[in-house]
Amino acid sequence: MRLPSHIAIIPDGNRRWAVKHHMNKADGYDFGLLPGVSVLKLAKEIGISEITFYGFTVDNCKRPAEQLKAFTKACVEAVHLIAKEGCSLLVIGNTKSKCFPKELIPYTKRTKINGGGIKVNFLVNYGWEWDLSGIGQNSAIYSNDVSRIDLIIRWGGMRRLSGLLPVQSVYSDFYIVEDLWPDFKKEHLSSALVWYDKQDVTLGG
Amino acid sequence: MRLPSHIAIIPDGNRRWAVKHHMNKADGYDFGLLPGVSVLKLAKEIGISEITFYGFTVDNCKRPAEQLKAFTKACVEAVHLIAKEGCSLLVIGNTKSKCFPKELIPYTKRTKINGGGIKVNFLVNYGWEWDLSGIGQNSAIYSNDVSRIDLIIRWGGMRRLSGLLPVQSVYSDFYIVEDLWPDFKKEHLSSALVWYDKQDVTLGG
Repeated sequence: MRLPSHIAIIPDGNRRWAVKHHMNKADGYDFGLLPGVSVLKLAKEIGISEITFYGFTVDNCKRPAEQLKAFTKACVEAVHLIAKEGCSLLVIGNTKSKCFPKELIPYTKRTKINGGGIKVNFLVNYGWEWDLSGIGQNSAIYSNDVSRIDLIIRWGGMRRLSGLLPVQSVYSDFYIVEDLWPDFKKEHLSSALVWYDKQDVTLGG
Repeated sequence: MRLPSHIAIIPDGNRRWAVKHHMNKADGYDFGLLPGVSVLKLAKEIGISEITFYGFTVDNCKRPAEQLKAFTKACVEAVHLIAKEGCSLLVIGNTKSKCFPKELIPYTKRTKINGGGIKVNFLVNYGWEWDLSGIGQNSAIYSNDVSRIDLIIRWGGMRRLSGLLPVQSVYSDFYIVEDLWPDFKKEHLSSALVWYDKQDVTLGG
């Protein structure tokens, strides 16, 4: 089976899941934590070499304060959970804005944890405009250490990138899961991989 | 009905169509010309304000000489057909490479034709790396005159951008038609528009 080297996860649908379960929208994010750990463990078992999690974006910071607080807290907890696994972790985003949680600053340089392993990129207060503005500043995008994405999996049914790493996504195959992210099942990942195996990779050639 | 302002067309599947019809791969491109004119006329009727056609890319130029010649010829003819319609036409791509057909140089500045109308962008020898390199050269991408894309429609079943305008695609909704481009039917466009109408537009917010 031809496996993707680098998978990106768009964990969408936390708020819709909360509403469906008669909770406040902001309460949904906590239910996205365990799925994140599950997908990381599965990716390691399968032998994926790099995984990117789309945490939150500069755009997302315009949301109501209660939600902003909730998804920031969930991302900080997610990074702490990931930092218990063997991996090579990088948190990437605009650290100069007040939306960037201070607790994650230590991870904004790639850090080998428990001897290293799978490359994990976690986007926190990421903005595509911020990322590309690096070209003007230092002749390279700020997310330069993130490699080309082979497979993007988005939960929650939307068929859009929502600003995810535009440079690394140019040739990515895009797989949509209709279920909401807190309803993650390992079958979502295996179906995505079976589908990916059938795609013809041309890299534009 | 909420209509997209700007639609991008990825007219994929010409070669597969040719093989399916017992022709040489290179013979398929000619059969993609009439669909292009049809989709433009429909877009004008519906009141779409901008449409982008993904002609060929810098990457595509690595293909066998026979195919390169065929898709270049088809793109030149497509632009000439479009230039019979009322529109505001821009051909965009790397004109400094020998793959760029000289006949299209006059259209690399936006040109009002028959009194103007719908904005038409036609990508010829376009490269996402070339486009972004404009940021270093002149503080803006080379495709600066192309606006944000609301809806991308790709024929031929692939679920990837293949390097299409990464900056303009960050928030686009992505609709896939399984049929190959030369089998274009107007129902493809209407189904895409019905689907688009149901999408929740957030622009990352």
